[in-house]
Amino acid sequence: MTFAFGVLRGGGVCARVDDTVVDLSGLDPLFKGPSLNGLMAAGPDAWRQARERAGEGRDAAVAELGMPVEPADYVDFYSSLHHATNVGRMFRPDAEPLLPNWRHLPVGYHGRAGTVVPSGTPVRRPSGQRPGPAFGPSERLDIELEAGFVIGTPSTQGEPVPIERALDHVFGMLLVNDWSARDIQAWEYQPLGPFLAKSFATSISHWVVPLDELADRRVPAEPQDPEPLEYLREEPWAYDIPLEVELNGTVIARSNTRHLYWSIAQQIAHLTVNGASLRTGDLLATGTISGPEREERGCLLELSWNGEEPVQLDDGSTRTFLEDGDEVALRGEPLGEVRGRIEPATGG
Amino acid sequence: MTFAFGVLRGGGVCARVDDTVVDLSGLDPLFKGPSLNGLMAAGPDAWRQARERAGEGRDAAVAELGMPVEPADYVDFYSSLHHATNVGRMFRPDAEPLLPNWRHLPVGYHGRAGTVVPSGTPVRRPSGQRPGPAFGPSERLDIELEAGFVIGTPSTQGEPVPIERALDHVFGMLLVNDWSARDIQAWEYQPLGPFLAKSFATSISHWVVPLDELADRRVPAEPQDPEPLEYLREEPWAYDIPLEVELNGTVIARSNTRHLYWSIAQQIAHLTVNGASLRTGDLLATGTISGPEREERGCLLELSWNGEEPVQLDDGSTRTFLEDGDEVALRGEPLGEVRGRIEPATGG
Repeated sequence: MTFAFGVLRGGGVCARVDDTVVDLSGLDPLFKGPSLNGLMAAGPDAWRQARERAGEGRDAAVAELGMPVEPADYVDFYSSLHHATNVGRMFRPDAEPLLPNWRHLPVGYHGRAGTVVPSGTPVRRPSGQRPGPAFGPSERLDIELEAGFVIGTPSTQGEPVPIERALDHVFGMLLVNDWSARDIQAWEYQPLGPFLAKSFATSISHWVVPLDELADRRVPAEPQDPEPLEYLREEPWAYDIPLEVELNGTVIARSNTRHLYWSIAQQIAHLTVNGASLRTGDLLATGTISGPEREERGCLLELSWNGEEPVQLDDGSTRTFLEDGDEVALRGEPLGEVRGRIEPATGG
Repeated sequence: MTFAFGVLRGGGVCARVDDTVVDLSGLDPLFKGPSLNGLMAAGPDAWRQARERAGEGRDAAVAELGMPVEPADYVDFYSSLHHATNVGRMFRPDAEPLLPNWRHLPVGYHGRAGTVVPSGTPVRRPSGQRPGPAFGPSERLDIELEAGFVIGTPSTQGEPVPIERALDHVFGMLLVNDWSARDIQAWEYQPLGPFLAKSFATSISHWVVPLDELADRRVPAEPQDPEPLEYLREEPWAYDIPLEVELNGTVIARSNTRHLYWSIAQQIAHLTVNGASLRTGDLLATGTISGPEREERGCLLELSWNGEEPVQLDDGSTRTFLEDGDEVALRGEPLGEVRGRIEPATGG
């Protein structure tokens, strides 16, 4: 059986039990809220009880789904070795593809929590400054195939979360499409990182799968080289969740969360080692998940090798980056899917 | 008369009328909340009415103050020409100090909203990875003298805010100390920007001054060179607010918000040009505010020129960066002050 939590459009907690959507909102005041945040804040015992009571819910006649969580802070990591290596090869062809810090810490940055939207929300092509500068709609609009973790139990400011307790804070896992405007990013990102290239929209799946449900997906991973500093040290592991990217009905990439170098436990230990606190609703995304093979690349930047090698679609057309009207679905059982269609830029 | 809004410790809106603190919490349900966010969301008419009703409030016997706003997203800009130039000179001595994008757009990035704390909150020295990597308490802990603006009226995702409407969204202005661990930043920030170097704590002043109160502080500014793109174009202006940095009782720097190259209106027009929305509670900070003179530098990194020129304190001691027990106050009338003392690192 697969199980996940969600929120009905208009509010109220629901559950997905295999393929059935069950309305839990009448069972407990904790399940009435506009998002999962109330349940998430109530802690692991409440999460397990909610799961056990799913049988008491009633079938949701109209199973339209809403935004599952109210994001507190949104952090996007950069935890796929193959993605970071490919990006380095493209943009710094004469240097080591990986920067010196990459194998020592999970590189990450804060994104815009206020523009995280649920699956199905149309995504308007952003306008902005491109290198030059020129101004106009982005000409290199991209997807990023990512997974994400949402924090249930908060932590205290000033108190790092030890790696062996990190997973206790995680409510569950979902899919993330971190839409990216590569031309805007190329111009703006020095020296403080991506800003408008990412902040226009980030899509998340409707269903949040509790970590307990993913226990049998945990697999050992290759040893990390070099061995990480002590606060990041654990038996290497990853989730084995096959992922795919579909563009206008053509599957253009298949990847797997196994390809992540840094685990969610390491990301949490790193994020809090300076005393930063976790809040209920924090969203921690993995960064683009690419595998070693060409067809395992998790974004168009890599798939088209920065626009040089167009991707073939089943309708005979090709893509380097996204065109208006394109529809993208990222999928991976048991997480479900996250979907979005590109609308033309304002006035474009 | 000077006027500002705040929040009493334990909740409830209050006002500072010259030097008197007036408790407004009994006057209206809108003034009862744990922060100013309810009033901020109610819009400009409600803000003006609240100001007019300040005379009806009662003197707050115990005027202990709390966190004024619940930050939604926190964005930190980099809008002081002298600060960006000094940083460029220090870290890229053989190149143009300003990067090519700097004069074309207000460079900025997202910070961690969940660790914004009110004035007076002790700040624990962060631990983390320094270049090498080595691990331990930061050895280059710094302040950043900044102002900030909080958003009252939200905007719609997908709809840029035109520059001439930008100030309509701003509830008020405050002071910000964006504590920074320079050694952590140096190691982590490539290629995605500052993360743990900033996320451990950001301090804001207790009082938020409505923009209306600052109308007579608006002064013309030098023309921008080159002229900005159309969406950023306005008559150049800045606020004339003298600022000072006090460390353990010695004023070590004086600056002024006049030294900002990009205005808050330009920052908002830029932030939203890609369709990103504003939310009630968004905090937009200016970045370190440095002037052209040596004594106008807004952080220890610049004041000590990356540790090479120690700063003299009145007690005979010197500082390059902050030591445990150091107390910093940033001040600027009519904004008030933001204060914080450094506590030793955990286990340090």
